[in-house]
Amino acid sequence: MASPTLKLNSGHDMPQVGFGLWKVDNATCADTVYNAIKVGYRLFDGACDYGNEKEAGEGVARAIQDGLVKREDLFLVSKLWNSFHDADKVEPICRKQLADWGIDSFDLYIMHFPVALKYVPVETRYPPGWTHSKKDGDVQLSKASIQETWHAMEDLVHKGLAKSIGISNFQGSLILDLLRYANIRPATLQIEHHPYLVQPTLLQLAQSEGIAVTAYSSFGPQSFIELEWQKAKDSPVLFEHPTIVTIAEKHKKTPAQVLLRWATQRGLAVIPKSNNAARLAQNLEVTGFDLDVNELEAISGLDRHLRFNNPTDYLGTLHIFA
Amino acid sequence: MASPTLKLNSGHDMPQVGFGLWKVDNATCADTVYNAIKVGYRLFDGACDYGNEKEAGEGVARAIQDGLVKREDLFLVSKLWNSFHDADKVEPICRKQLADWGIDSFDLYIMHFPVALKYVPVETRYPPGWTHSKKDGDVQLSKASIQETWHAMEDLVHKGLAKSIGISNFQGSLILDLLRYANIRPATLQIEHHPYLVQPTLLQLAQSEGIAVTAYSSFGPQSFIELEWQKAKDSPVLFEHPTIVTIAEKHKKTPAQVLLRWATQRGLAVIPKSNNAARLAQNLEVTGFDLDVNELEAISGLDRHLRFNNPTDYLGTLHIFA
Repeated sequence: MASPTLKLNSGHDMPQVGFGLWKVDNATCADTVYNAIKVGYRLFDGACDYGNEKEAGEGVARAIQDGLVKREDLFLVSKLWNSFHDADKVEPICRKQLADWGIDSFDLYIMHFPVALKYVPVETRYPPGWTHSKKDGDVQLSKASIQETWHAMEDLVHKGLAKSIGISNFQGSLILDLLRYANIRPATLQIEHHPYLVQPTLLQLAQSEGIAVTAYSSFGPQSFIELEWQKAKDSPVLFEHPTIVTIAEKHKKTPAQVLLRWATQRGLAVIPKSNNAARLAQNLEVTGFDLDVNELEAISGLDRHLRFNNPTDYLGTLHIFA
Repeated sequence: MASPTLKLNSGHDMPQVGFGLWKVDNATCADTVYNAIKVGYRLFDGACDYGNEKEAGEGVARAIQDGLVKREDLFLVSKLWNSFHDADKVEPICRKQLADWGIDSFDLYIMHFPVALKYVPVETRYPPGWTHSKKDGDVQLSKASIQETWHAMEDLVHKGLAKSIGISNFQGSLILDLLRYANIRPATLQIEHHPYLVQPTLLQLAQSEGIAVTAYSSFGPQSFIELEWQKAKDSPVLFEHPTIVTIAEKHKKTPAQVLLRWATQRGLAVIPKSNNAARLAQNLEVTGFDLDVNELEAISGLDRHLRFNNPTDYLGTLHIFA
């Protein structure tokens, strides 16, 4: 089954359902990507920070070699890490990431966070992570503004290194400011989005500005429990939430499928991941049934303004969601 | 009774309790300011948008003339309206506002909102308001970035037209971006702040960056009920809230004084207004008693993430708080 696509403001089509590479083990990543392509996935959402771009690229290469797909059938996404925000660091790191993937250009290249960290050379540590050294709390900033970084990302499009460019983890006022100076508008906005963090106004903003939205952590706390985050452990599991379970039973779908369908019916793209072949296929089959308005509203009604991926919580600084 | 002061990062001292000029009628504004000075107020928080700067200036002039205060005893604040964000519009409008007040420089000049609206000449309409014409919904944007506007505001300091400059209604990520390119850091951040909108992370950010925070609408829905805003009418009045009333009775203070003391003990400056002489004096006397930790936490526990002054609600666009 193929995913429907969203038309981006860059003119390109993006699959509405893709595969997220965050927390995919290096050891299994190539096989996982290969199998996901076999099942029908065409979009892969990677990032420097996920530390598995070489392995993801190996999976892609094998799938192409075996004739499962052609490069142009795929929509490969990567992200600029925070420590490469200085204008002169953007193109070199993008080229390094392309080399890791073994491709010539990304279909979409995203500013991972609106945070400019001090540069860390690839030779020193890669991926560099949030802290400047291995010491906890050693967060060092660069002087690069979002404007400086965005213009450098625009150059990637001009040079053919990225077909579209996007942003992630941006708040409303920062998006509106970006739109004042952007020569190329962001094609997508990627945000944490689940029934505990519904963000209707941010979706409204993106829609009115013609920016497609991709949801990450669609299953809410689930994505963070394996990281042992207390906030996630303290939140009711969405897969067992009565509202979700009842709707899932009614439609003879899994809770995961209901969560993804709620997001796609709100117009969002989703990027679940799974290591399980059956669930891989299930997650892709989330646009073939419809929730009704009452069901959609019941799920949105679970909103708790509960954000898990927040530097304030795991770094104690960089309050980008304040 | 004089207000204690906060030391700003610009080196200047700002009274922690001041008088807010929003919604002060033109007819009574001069007298109100005069009387407030008589009672002991030294900080007046004005804005182009409040439409009463001439009258406020008259009150100040009369108080100086009568020997109540000298200019240097006062801390006069004004704000740049959204339609004057283009770099070449900042100094002219600041000079016009100074002329309205009848003074040579502002003690603090604040970017009112992180929103650049299309320029409206003073001759066309003043104050210009949110919409470009009198038509509802006619919101037109300018191309000025926050960076462009901020650098123009820095020039006001260099030219002696403003002693300090600040921001208002900014989110965390936009503040962090501003701090990347600011040559003069914002001395203050003015935000909506009351027990229904507690914003601990934003306060943490401001504190860690050495930016003083001024609370507006310290009484919550109260400030907006007279505007007939449904959201305000639907929210329990803080002056009658059992938590506030109980604490007020214990300390033999008014609920208003408790709300202001909660804010000032959190380190914020406050700018209440009143037309009533007794309450004017009461509001100034809000640093002479202390709430204990349990009381402070009980009040913070009323948080509902409830924002009243939000363009999303009254314009249906400009989602700066998304």
